[in-house]
Amino acid sequence: MKIVTLPELRNVMSREAVLAAVRKAYIGHAHQRYVTPMPGQLLFDEPPGDCHIKYGYSKAGAVFVIKIAIGFYGNAKLGLPVNNGLVLVLSRTTGEPVAVFQDEGWLTSWRTAAAGTLAASLAATRKPEVLGVFGAGHQAELQATWITQAMGIREVRIWARQADADQAKNLAERLRGMGLAAIAGRTTGEVLEEARLVVTATPSNVPLFPAHEVRPGTHIVALGADSPGKQELDPTLFGRARCIATDDHEQCLDHGDLSYAVKAGIIPADADQSLGVLLENPEFLDLTGEDISIVDLTGIPAQDIENAALFCRLLGL
Amino acid sequence: MKIVTLPELRNVMSREAVLAAVRKAYIGHAHQRYVTPMPGQLLFDEPPGDCHIKYGYSKAGAVFVIKIAIGFYGNAKLGLPVNNGLVLVLSRTTGEPVAVFQDEGWLTSWRTAAAGTLAASLAATRKPEVLGVFGAGHQAELQATWITQAMGIREVRIWARQADADQAKNLAERLRGMGLAAIAGRTTGEVLEEARLVVTATPSNVPLFPAHEVRPGTHIVALGADSPGKQELDPTLFGRARCIATDDHEQCLDHGDLSYAVKAGIIPADADQSLGVLLENPEFLDLTGEDISIVDLTGIPAQDIENAALFCRLLGL
Repeated sequence: MKIVTLPELRNVMSREAVLAAVRKAYIGHAHQRYVTPMPGQLLFDEPPGDCHIKYGYSKAGAVFVIKIAIGFYGNAKLGLPVNNGLVLVLSRTTGEPVAVFQDEGWLTSWRTAAAGTLAASLAATRKPEVLGVFGAGHQAELQATWITQAMGIREVRIWARQADADQAKNLAERLRGMGLAAIAGRTTGEVLEEARLVVTATPSNVPLFPAHEVRPGTHIVALGADSPGKQELDPTLFGRARCIATDDHEQCLDHGDLSYAVKAGIIPADADQSLGVLLENPEFLDLTGEDISIVDLTGIPAQDIENAALFCRLLGL
Repeated sequence: MKIVTLPELRNVMSREAVLAAVRKAYIGHAHQRYVTPMPGQLLFDEPPGDCHIKYGYSKAGAVFVIKIAIGFYGNAKLGLPVNNGLVLVLSRTTGEPVAVFQDEGWLTSWRTAAAGTLAASLAATRKPEVLGVFGAGHQAELQATWITQAMGIREVRIWARQADADQAKNLAERLRGMGLAAIAGRTTGEVLEEARLVVTATPSNVPLFPAHEVRPGTHIVALGADSPGKQELDPTLFGRARCIATDDHEQCLDHGDLSYAVKAGIIPADADQSLGVLLENPEFLDLTGEDISIVDLTGIPAQDIENAALFCRLLGL
């Protein structure tokens, strides 16, 4: 069994390879190519924290994967990272442990960055020039950097809630340091006025902006609502969307942003298309320059399985 | 994060300490002192295997524990161990990984050996002299060695199904090498005739012996039926028992040997007492020399939690 630390993972990480692995995961998920039981979770009160255990395997793969993702929200005050984790890779033929990735949560960060980037890529033919980013945390920054690089974005507008205004300014400054035009918008309207590609990466439990602020021709990737109670989008926005894609229909119906729109009767429960099907068949996506489109992401174990298998290959395991 | 290998675990292992930890687990479980969600499982077809993920924490503890127990049944043919596993210990205050025990399944073996020994100890006041062991595998051997040492047993009689007759003979020989009187019985009756303490440690899915072969004054510890479909005891035996104890009422009602007796209407669903309560209050157990008693064990996460916490202490982590 090989113990692999974060520096070793960083050393071999390639955005292109992670994007390809996560793309394979979405397409495979649409074709039921994975065995992925219901994830487990542990919740903690004092201090507040959670631990999510996702596990499964590809029917075509040589390994099975157990991913442990941990969030302890008081850690920031202690100068410790909020997110942590471990990914275990085991042989599907003998059950022997192959590797423990002591990834400190970064494999999840990268596969989520890839998820947002792939979801954003559905709008590639419309060549959006301005990216709107809601949220200014770790994942928001990854989305900003991965999407701008993958899609040739020229400008980023960031919005964060008042309490995180400094974080948004700092993120804008770091993006400018990378040669991008970047500002922290004072209002959501200021961001949505220009951004035709929007990614939401917050832990919000209320809509981040009113639906009417979204301009025609905007493609929205919502990835914050990954557990019950979280919400980022105004449900009425779904009524204006010509295309709604989900990473997993059942999960999004249960706790994605989609769920609020369906429960409110704004759209029928079968209004969504599979992200995996759209990535495999981009011709199914028939958007005009004026259409609004939404991708609702809740996170699926197949991402973790393909990502872990990828890092095994990159490390020669 | 400390990686601890099996030799390091063996080096600090103490039967007395494991017995005390598992005793604490049973008593704490009876008092609802643990948070232990439903375990997860992955099943594999080709080759056949399974992976069980048990996880949780003590409300009074400083860590949470994730135990991965793996069985790949074709491994024996490849010269590899059938059981494997990893135990992860993480901080309950920061979520940081504390240790990975690369235990190859041995922490589970030890805590199960302790479970059988504690369950057997309920019969200590009757001073049984002959132990009957059903099964001749890895766990049967641990039961034989732990129970004989803890209870001053003078003779062991082993029974295994015909296909494992050689294994039973070899086990008897190893036990004789340890200074015990030990034989491999040809029939179940030959074992039960003399044994007033019996432990069943098999993967059987049918009763191992007819109820009428069990003599008055016999205490039976059944630990093989740990998942649906497995069975070791003739359900009518429960009708003859004056005391029935279970490690977890709901689990035993779902898939323990108890479940067959309840479903057959031989005993009511509430016929069992809690093993933890009996260990804490041995005076509740009021057996005469003629009574038959049964302990049905299915395995509970609290055992793994206390056992992992114990090895952290033994290793100074």
